[in-house]
Amino acid sequence: MTDCGPNASPRSKGNVPAYREIYHRVRTEILTGRLPASARLPSSRTLAVQLGVARGTVELAYQMLAGEGYTLSAGARGTIVNPSLPVERKPVTFASDPRKPLRDVQLRLPPKPLLFQMGLPALDAFPRKQWAQVASRVARRVDVEQFAHPHDVMGYEPLRQAIASHLRITRGIACGAEQVLITAGALGALELIGQTMVVGPGDAVWMENPGYFYARDILRKLPVRLIGVPVDGEGLDVAAGIAAEPDATMAVVTPTHHYPFGMPLSQARRRALLDWAERRHAWIVEYDYDSAFHFRGATAPALKSLDRVGRVLHVGSFGKVLFPGLRMGYLILPHALLGRFEDVARIAHPSPPLMIQQMVHAFMREGHLARHVSRMRRLYAERRDALANALRTVLPDALDLLVPDGGTHVVAHLHGPERDVDLVARLRGSGIGPWPLSRCAVTASAANGLIMNYTNVAAADARSAVERMAAAMS
Amino acid sequence: MTDCGPNASPRSKGNVPAYREIYHRVRTEILTGRLPASARLPSSRTLAVQLGVARGTVELAYQMLAGEGYTLSAGARGTIVNPSLPVERKPVTFASDPRKPLRDVQLRLPPKPLLFQMGLPALDAFPRKQWAQVASRVARRVDVEQFAHPHDVMGYEPLRQAIASHLRITRGIACGAEQVLITAGALGALELIGQTMVVGPGDAVWMENPGYFYARDILRKLPVRLIGVPVDGEGLDVAAGIAAEPDATMAVVTPTHHYPFGMPLSQARRRALLDWAERRHAWIVEYDYDSAFHFRGATAPALKSLDRVGRVLHVGSFGKVLFPGLRMGYLILPHALLGRFEDVARIAHPSPPLMIQQMVHAFMREGHLARHVSRMRRLYAERRDALANALRTVLPDALDLLVPDGGTHVVAHLHGPERDVDLVARLRGSGIGPWPLSRCAVTASAANGLIMNYTNVAAADARSAVERMAAAMS
Repeated sequence: MTDCGPNASPRSKGNVPAYREIYHRVRTEILTGRLPASARLPSSRTLAVQLGVARGTVELAYQMLAGEGYTLSAGARGTIVNPSLPVERKPVTFASDPRKPLRDVQLRLPPKPLLFQMGLPALDAFPRKQWAQVASRVARRVDVEQFAHPHDVMGYEPLRQAIASHLRITRGIACGAEQVLITAGALGALELIGQTMVVGPGDAVWMENPGYFYARDILRKLPVRLIGVPVDGEGLDVAAGIAAEPDATMAVVTPTHHYPFGMPLSQARRRALLDWAERRHAWIVEYDYDSAFHFRGATAPALKSLDRVGRVLHVGSFGKVLFPGLRMGYLILPHALLGRFEDVARIAHPSPPLMIQQMVHAFMREGHLARHVSRMRRLYAERRDALANALRTVLPDALDLLVPDGGTHVVAHLHGPERDVDLVARLRGSGIGPWPLSRCAVTASAANGLIMNYTNVAAADARSAVERMAAAMS
Repeated sequence: MTDCGPNASPRSKGNVPAYREIYHRVRTEILTGRLPASARLPSSRTLAVQLGVARGTVELAYQMLAGEGYTLSAGARGTIVNPSLPVERKPVTFASDPRKPLRDVQLRLPPKPLLFQMGLPALDAFPRKQWAQVASRVARRVDVEQFAHPHDVMGYEPLRQAIASHLRITRGIACGAEQVLITAGALGALELIGQTMVVGPGDAVWMENPGYFYARDILRKLPVRLIGVPVDGEGLDVAAGIAAEPDATMAVVTPTHHYPFGMPLSQARRRALLDWAERRHAWIVEYDYDSAFHFRGATAPALKSLDRVGRVLHVGSFGKVLFPGLRMGYLILPHALLGRFEDVARIAHPSPPLMIQQMVHAFMREGHLARHVSRMRRLYAERRDALANALRTVLPDALDLLVPDGGTHVVAHLHGPERDVDLVARLRGSGIGPWPLSRCAVTASAANGLIMNYTNVAAADARSAVERMAAAMS
């Protein structure tokens, strides 16, 4: 096989010799600041091997760079970029970058958390020390198990056992580890369900309206018809769903705490939903959102615990009980769907890197997770009450407050004429980040309000936080 | 909101009191062995909070379990499962598990690597110590950046910078960090391309035939027509592709080293392919497979380096230069596609957990990766030669050997009448794991042979490894 040497090869730039081409490439990196001051260059030996040229060729280029003052020899550290470069370094620019300004700017996440920002657990109360110990211990291991593509495409077997055991005891779900598929967060589970279960086009899917916007966005990418089904104090109005589209093939619901309003799906509605699914051979996707955090009485058991014939796919996540950056969730599958999901998993490898799964498993096994969740349950109840009190005191007229019995947020319906998205955009400028309720609309919805996460507002700070928001609102 | 207490709640099992329900659930876990001997039970306080019942209720259940000998008090360790349980523990069974026996059993990965197993770098030569140090140092950090969903859905910015810089220097690709999207391995990149770029149904996609089977499997899930385009010594036969389907919207190719045969796409074919894509506004997906490992002359530069108008999507992976269990890859996008991919990324969050990205970045920044790759390039050249020699000596008549100038495997065409899948299935039984060449067929292909990875066969062991295979073959 021959060297086919197109233009970009360091040895074949028309009549430019290879060492000059290497010199030019490295010099460009330095001049644009992409190789910053004092950055170490690869050794001439390493770069020569990488480029497939003689070591002398790279050395010649490096000598030219040193001779012109771009680089310095730094002893054992090798060659570095001259920290006091005598030439003017231009900032990196991309003259022809045709990217449009970002749409929907107010919905992008900022680098630092905002006040009331959704989706974050309490940053101040996370057991950093225990997590750091467990995570670094797991990371220090480099065994074949971590190294290779995982043997089991459904996820790390001990973690699947631990999750099944946890769900049997705390959520009443009679499941075995073989039904557990570890996913990249709840979103990964919903993506996978979409890929695997949607036959479409024309498949209809029920969603609570308003409902979980991420699930809606994932479903919108698929060739399905989304049916927004209204909710009331008992959760999804099953009769309204049947009236709108009895032949839907799937319903996506949040039965433990409705997203975003927080009420559980009533016992009567649960039966009605399961009856519909059994009769129509439809599937129910239960997103068990925030079920770990319930503050009054017993947590409603999972809908899956009532599923006698295997119509319910149960989705859970470690995003709130640990942290969302882990991107770790799970899917409890009916036995009849295991083969189908395993086939897809064998191609898509949906589980996170094994190392991360091992970290979460060790954290569970050593009891840290259960202790942390108990503590957060008490803490979040306290923070919820403090925020609700502050909102009622400081902004009694502007907002109509809904304080769910569980979860991690309150919902404040807006009285005034301003649209929630406009208000949210204004508040962002002041570092305040509630989520607009109207963004949860699946189909037309009059909902206009703020979803406010309280996990990161200490009880003692609730009053001043709300005063800050009130000032920014007016 | 009321407690809607369905059957599975610990406080509402018909007339069964809550403590008895808890007693039964835990006892079942113990009797089935899912809570193994000496396993620690959650504290009564923690479980009470989790279940939303009074602590006394859990304590009553625990007293019953202890009274019947299922559990013991173990001082500071709390309550544990009695290690010398006087009752017979039944193994976990799922009487009604309707799972079918697994199809295609010979293609599942085993828990321990097999001889010649594909997709693994050298396990014996990985710089474990350096990796363990870097990984555990990163894992010890628990900062907000790691905690939250990533600010940048395209991936960790410093890693994107490092990848862009690496590709500019070693692969001749003029790209900025803003064009880099970090993905869950090369497969994650291909999945994402499929989701984002396929308009279908009816879209036609060229693939090399034979070609990269994982890409084929991903494309087969989508509503596209796969066009298998023949390859010869110069790689993809562009003229044959145009004759078969000039209006294809995409071509998926391995220009640096064809998968599985290893030849680079010739200069003339590169021009022809780019000309076709420019003329037809088609996209080219370049999977830069194994480009780090090239053993003779300069590595062919990336096709992307010749892409003047932005028709090439460049896919790379850390699977071979580090290890596949990381599930880390990247996608270099034309500027015109950035908005589209960013929109999809904002919903799908395709990048691996930030912690893993930070580990890889630190490993690159400190120069470990470049040094490791140079070492492996020399080691793999040596192992390739040793295996080729051993195959020619021990099995001169059975195989027709193709030894590529780069990559991590050789290809052995079979002379005899046995089908490669049957031979591979037989060899699996002896712990020998080449991959069947026929599995790389995109459409009809007469290819019949073994793909043999040599990265884990030390030069000194090559002869005995081949003798072991020869014995298993006869």
